Amino acid sequence: MVTQQPESRGFFSNLPVSFFASKGLMMALIVQKYGGTSVGSIEKIRNVAKRVLESYKEGHKMVVVLSAIAGQTDNLIKLAHQMCTDPDPREMDVLMATGEQVTVALFAMAVKSMGYDARSLLGFQVAIHTDMLYGKARIHEIDTARILTELEKNRVIAIAGFQGLDERGNITTLGRGGSDTTAVAVAAALNADVCEIYSDVKGVYTTDPNVCPKARKMDSISYDEMLELASLGAKVLEIRSVEFAKKYDVPIHVRSTFTTERGTMVVAETKDMERVMVSGVAYNKSEARITVKRVPDRPGTAARIFEPLLNSGIIVDMIIQNPSEAGKTDLTFTVNKSDFEKSLKLVSEVATGIGAEKVMGDENIAKVSIVGVGMRNHAGVAQKMFHTLAKENINIMMISTSEIKISVVIEEKYTELAVRVLHEVFGLENGPQQDQ
Amino acid sequence: MVTQQPESRGFFSNLPVSFFASKGLMMALIVQKYGGTSVGSIEKIRNVAKRVLESYKEGHKMVVVLSAIAGQTDNLIKLAHQMCTDPDPREMDVLMATGEQVTVALFAMAVKSMGYDARSLLGFQVAIHTDMLYGKARIHEIDTARILTELEKNRVIAIAGFQGLDERGNITTLGRGGSDTTAVAVAAALNADVCEIYSDVKGVYTTDPNVCPKARKMDSISYDEMLELASLGAKVLEIRSVEFAKKYDVPIHVRSTFTTERGTMVVAETKDMERVMVSGVAYNKSEARITVKRVPDRPGTAARIFEPLLNSGIIVDMIIQNPSEAGKTDLTFTVNKSDFEKSLKLVSEVATGIGAEKVMGDENIAKVSIVGVGMRNHAGVAQKMFHTLAKENINIMMISTSEIKISVVIEEKYTELAVRVLHEVFGLENGPQQDQ
Repeated sequence: MVTQQPESRGFFSNLPVSFFASKGLMMALIVQKYGGTSVGSIEKIRNVAKRVLESYKEGHKMVVVLSAIAGQTDNLIKLAHQMCTDPDPREMDVLMATGEQVTVALFAMAVKSMGYDARSLLGFQVAIHTDMLYGKARIHEIDTARILTELEKNRVIAIAGFQGLDERGNITTLGRGGSDTTAVAVAAALNADVCEIYSDVKGVYTTDPNVCPKARKMDSISYDEMLELASLGAKVLEIRSVEFAKKYDVPIHVRSTFTTERGTMVVAETKDMERVMVSGVAYNKSEARITVKRVPDRPGTAARIFEPLLNSGIIVDMIIQNPSEAGKTDLTFTVNKSDFEKSLKLVSEVATGIGAEKVMGDENIAKVSIVGVGMRNHAGVAQKMFHTLAKENINIMMISTSEIKISVVIEEKYTELAVRVLHEVFGLENGPQQDQ
Repeated sequence: MVTQQPESRGFFSNLPVSFFASKGLMMALIVQKYGGTSVGSIEKIRNVAKRVLESYKEGHKMVVVLSAIAGQTDNLIKLAHQMCTDPDPREMDVLMATGEQVTVALFAMAVKSMGYDARSLLGFQVAIHTDMLYGKARIHEIDTARILTELEKNRVIAIAGFQGLDERGNITTLGRGGSDTTAVAVAAALNADVCEIYSDVKGVYTTDPNVCPKARKMDSISYDEMLELASLGAKVLEIRSVEFAKKYDVPIHVRSTFTTERGTMVVAETKDMERVMVSGVAYNKSEARITVKRVPDRPGTAARIFEPLLNSGIIVDMIIQNPSEAGKTDLTFTVNKSDFEKSLKLVSEVATGIGAEKVMGDENIAKVSIVGVGMRNHAGVAQKMFHTLAKENINIMMISTSEIKISVVIEEKYTELAVRVLHEVFGLENGPQQDQ
């Protein structure tokens, strides 16, 4: 058995230039993104300006992507819904885009009042070109000319996150958490040394610290693991931004606005990472389970059951099928709780038509997952997971696996217990377990 | 003496097509502008949408320019000043421009929720090209292509007032009341039939109704008179917008958002207007008077006195010079009260150098003006004004005149009395006096 400290997990070899650069060793191009709580007041915006200037004074080129002031996005949504129940999506984006516009202007004022040059750039000024999907636009291309011109003038650049421009010149927004995507996309376009994502959490944890006090901040994690740990990561990093970072190999440093501590690096997978069996434990209480009992086992039945859900835009997560008796099968799947009642209704309508016995629903479930790229090379991880849960008398209702993840559905009330025992049995509080 | 009703003052002959059009007689292109109090709440924006749609349903092409929600501009200024005492002008404009952006988005949502098509356009989307003077930019050119394309699609167009774009792609704002200028400029560019300026006042009055209950709403007024009545007009119409309207001959209809009553037409001067001696009485309590006593009457002295004021950006309004004794003269001028202390200091410093006896100041003054294009052809207007004030024992301290205005400076405490007696003696409550 090779025993290694967490630090030796290939972290340093994997570190981007800018990590050293931010220690003053060389000049780097750094993209930083500050979330809503980091810019939640005038005083906080001023502190962000000071923090950015610290790096600037060390000689780094600074491009800062900012979110709307915490709560502002919700206020704007409320305003729109006071106007009408179903606000026009194009105009919604025009409205929403003001949130980040306020922040970048205030930030640039702060930097200028501290005696340094700064310039705010909105989505249309950069320009950040997107498709036409209002409210959930995807970035197509980022012009770097204006940013580079401003950087050459030694200005701190403040880019409004979350917003872009479609090809007809309309304002678009990227959806919740879109500022992370803006930051990563800008970092990719500029070939930045690092993209630092600042928020009020210190990094990515092995699990939710509120559930498991022994949760440990990870030093680094691969893009794929981060994607699988969505339910953990969502609090610190928008998932689409991770996909983007993976695609363009942008190193992300997830860290806290309120300390100078190192956070978690989200980077391309390295050989060293594979030595770790399990990197984190995630859970998700937002799903509900639907079972269609004794479905005649004929080709096309599953399609007929899922078709009305598909047509209604309802996303089905896990699906399992068990033969119940000869020629009959039980079909079980999960949907988001918010779609539960509707799904139950839609499926019940179809069920009679195909001769199923009945449809049952259960909202009191939770999905618990263990994630780790090392899983690919380790036998017995699933076995260890199932055994651990069994020991606590936690019944497993559904199982689904990917190359680097095992998820189980259990009774909701056991969620926290399951997370804690899995966290312990895979030794996550002591740093990742290594090859045995 | 020819006696005429107010309506016969050339008003109808002077009416733009759209006034009839808005009565459903023909199709017109109408630009409407709604001020901050007109869009002061969700409910009010909804009402504006209904009002606009009434005209739209009659077949008119509707372009609506909107201000920020009442109070929002002040809130944004406050926010900036919480950040720093002297916010960067460029970033100030980025911040301020969000106010109108919110309103146009909400307005377009309202129209769409009522089943009609609408589209908001920001300054950069129109585009409204301005110079680079942040905070007080002047419009250079307005592209009409996008507006016309949207109008062809039978959309109601909502344009964010007050904002533009300079040639480098930066956001600019036009200064206080700038939305009026946006509306008039858009109307000029589109060759609109009329530019309707909506606010919470019903039109332009012969004088301030708060001072003189007999003040009467005028049916029409010339651009030049409106410019001279600035202190009255400022409440309903930004003065730069009148200059713009005059230059491009855009008929303005000043009216109330909260009634359907006709307001006041601001139009090019007509022959009929000249029959009226006095159109309105204005007053201004915001100036203070400075007198430099016994200045040696040599060439260049006045220049030396005014130079430091000029260099400090202080605007001098009225100037009079009286010989006090051989070779000596008294120089009196007015400045804004906010510049009074500074002016007194600057002038006192210079006064000793040029051998003047002393410098005196007086803040308790007011300027009262009578305005009317007919003045050019009427003898005895000034005489009648001075005589009327004398009868009330109101001493005239300074006099200045233009072709269509006579202003006097009096003790501040007599302001209201002076306004009332002048309003009465020139018969303004009964409609304009005619040729005698």
